[in-house]
Amino acid sequence: MINIAVMGFGTVGAGVADVFEMNGALIAQRLGEPVYVKYILDVREFPDSPFAGRVVHDFDVILNDPAVEIVVETIGGAKVAYDYTKRALAAGKHVVTSNKELVATKGCELLQLAKEKNVNYLFEAAVGGGIPVLRPMQQCLAANEIEEVYGILNGTTNFILSRMVRAGVTFEAALKEAQSLGYAEQDPTADVEGQDACRKICILADLAFGKELPPEHVPTCGISGVTLRDVEIVEQAGWRVKLLGRALRTAGGKVCAYVAPHLVAAEHPFSAVEDVFNAIMVRGNAVGEVMFYGPGAGKLPTASAVAADVLDAAAHREKRKNIGWSAWRAEDAGTPEELELRGYFRVKDPLETVEARFPGSEILASGGEVAFITPKMPLRRLEDAAAALQLCAKMCVLG
Amino acid sequence: MINIAVMGFGTVGAGVADVFEMNGALIAQRLGEPVYVKYILDVREFPDSPFAGRVVHDFDVILNDPAVEIVVETIGGAKVAYDYTKRALAAGKHVVTSNKELVATKGCELLQLAKEKNVNYLFEAAVGGGIPVLRPMQQCLAANEIEEVYGILNGTTNFILSRMVRAGVTFEAALKEAQSLGYAEQDPTADVEGQDACRKICILADLAFGKELPPEHVPTCGISGVTLRDVEIVEQAGWRVKLLGRALRTAGGKVCAYVAPHLVAAEHPFSAVEDVFNAIMVRGNAVGEVMFYGPGAGKLPTASAVAADVLDAAAHREKRKNIGWSAWRAEDAGTPEELELRGYFRVKDPLETVEARFPGSEILASGGEVAFITPKMPLRRLEDAAAALQLCAKMCVLG
Repeated sequence: MINIAVMGFGTVGAGVADVFEMNGALIAQRLGEPVYVKYILDVREFPDSPFAGRVVHDFDVILNDPAVEIVVETIGGAKVAYDYTKRALAAGKHVVTSNKELVATKGCELLQLAKEKNVNYLFEAAVGGGIPVLRPMQQCLAANEIEEVYGILNGTTNFILSRMVRAGVTFEAALKEAQSLGYAEQDPTADVEGQDACRKICILADLAFGKELPPEHVPTCGISGVTLRDVEIVEQAGWRVKLLGRALRTAGGKVCAYVAPHLVAAEHPFSAVEDVFNAIMVRGNAVGEVMFYGPGAGKLPTASAVAADVLDAAAHREKRKNIGWSAWRAEDAGTPEELELRGYFRVKDPLETVEARFPGSEILASGGEVAFITPKMPLRRLEDAAAALQLCAKMCVLG
Repeated sequence: MINIAVMGFGTVGAGVADVFEMNGALIAQRLGEPVYVKYILDVREFPDSPFAGRVVHDFDVILNDPAVEIVVETIGGAKVAYDYTKRALAAGKHVVTSNKELVATKGCELLQLAKEKNVNYLFEAAVGGGIPVLRPMQQCLAANEIEEVYGILNGTTNFILSRMVRAGVTFEAALKEAQSLGYAEQDPTADVEGQDACRKICILADLAFGKELPPEHVPTCGISGVTLRDVEIVEQAGWRVKLLGRALRTAGGKVCAYVAPHLVAAEHPFSAVEDVFNAIMVRGNAVGEVMFYGPGAGKLPTASAVAADVLDAAAHREKRKNIGWSAWRAEDAGTPEELELRGYFRVKDPLETVEARFPGSEILASGGEVAFITPKMPLRRLEDAAAALQLCAKMCVLG
């Protein structure tokens, strides 16, 4: 029997305990031995929970119990979670987490510590919720040079954009709806301003390229500036608006990433990704493009990914999985400004000004304001040329 | 260094050799040691190939060389490939294959032999070409009870259907196009009549449910009966026609599968799967639905999956991966006839007859012939009721 501890009994932590109850027999059969949730660490009590008797409040109980081989960290944030994770790894325990903030900011260091202690630090649930993406990218595409990873990485913003498209409501109204359904927090900043997507694209880039890309080096723009007017203009022209995180290897072998709202063509598989679903596209030099799609959040889906990592850690107790990336170096980092992109702009200038400044553009609307998609050009040139216009809105174009 | 042999130097075999050349340095770094293609087994010579000097014609050379630890079988079929695979496994060599026919028909026996010899028999490339799906389903969804797997599993038929929808050409014209592009064989029967999809859904079912489901127990209908008329009628009503393989756990815990053309709603992620791309949806009791999408065939994509298996076999030389399923037993098998489905029919009968026989149907067309979608009912009842009508066309409806 494998004893595990779950730290943080919020939505995901409770889901993890539930999955090991619900599918315990099946898991025991597949793993060859049962998994038992011995402790749940939380500051709160849960008198009505079937796990009430296993709740502890002192991390040392877990740390000092040699029977606990695997610790699940579903606390979130990068403070207490960081401290406990370091101590658990240092004590020779495997750690599994759904904590994207911690992995994006401290993953490199924690993986190094895990390597020294010959234990696993796994975090499939940190990106894409229940969607298998990190493990397939690492293992199933292991014979590929990864050239690019991009995705719809945040369910809240995708729900809001879906509602704007389908119900024709404003950003503000769609956000309220998301909050009332529990899809958005009362303070929705991290989702809406793209920070959550930024952390996830950083983790994807770290793994895909083997080099740390810290969130503070990733230009991030969320969807609070996306208006219903722009959504409608581009929709009429066959485009969908999606918040994407993108990470790619630039010409010189450097790596760069950014987060921004994008126009996605109706024929692209992402256009069918609605509501709180996520999708991640990975481009490898042998396989081409493969996509992973599914529920990007939620109690049981996220717990499904955490539980799979627990099983994987258990199966690799002797021979740990070789996961890690080298620490951040400024010279490895490219800048998105070098990327060649098409841009979408809506401006107050007359059509002639637009056509003079961006020759060859596709004009989507021209009554009063002009909305247009530029030809492909380096992002820097795009921004320079746009700066001289009376800008109402701007977005990137995928492809 | 790990020495491997590639048996069968056709498209996929040549792709495997190419991938190990093209990405050799990267693979060596990830695996911790280089992989060397020591032999290529084929009846032909390849004087112009960079691998010409490694071509051998006698399987025994490979079998008797203890330096060859992993054998790649890209011969195809279930005769020579079956014989060589058995002998390679019996000799304690790991075997990796893209051969769906062999895995679907002899997988259970070969996996048992692999287990006895403590070696790996891996076949990610047998389903979905380059798409990571078997390993993610097994590993990343390991904490789930899999309830259903369904997919667009054959690129040739999906290309033909895409052309019928988008270019408005007939099945026959689209097939000719597929043949001239190299997407369809001169004898396209195995693709067009659904046998290829059948083998793949069998492998998915074997792995998902842990019980062998032989292809001969899976009712299979291809797309040669799909007419442009039906494609256009359903398209107008918001549906796409897709050839799907489906495998699911029925109410009594039994397993059943079938292959048939389906109507897929425009909002379903499958509707954006065009041309030779494949997509596989897996429904687990914790995660819900997750989808894997990508190139379902092709030289380098398929080789990417084979190469990943080679790396996985190499990484699990001491502790083999625990993959397998129990042998076929009639009592484990449900029948698709018990499934509840909606059906699409086009008939010569008058509207009143249709409405009397299938009350509550959605009428899609009623000038002369009547095209309609029935309410959900057991497949057996659906077929019984339809048998009394003057049937021109029938398809299943997904969802």
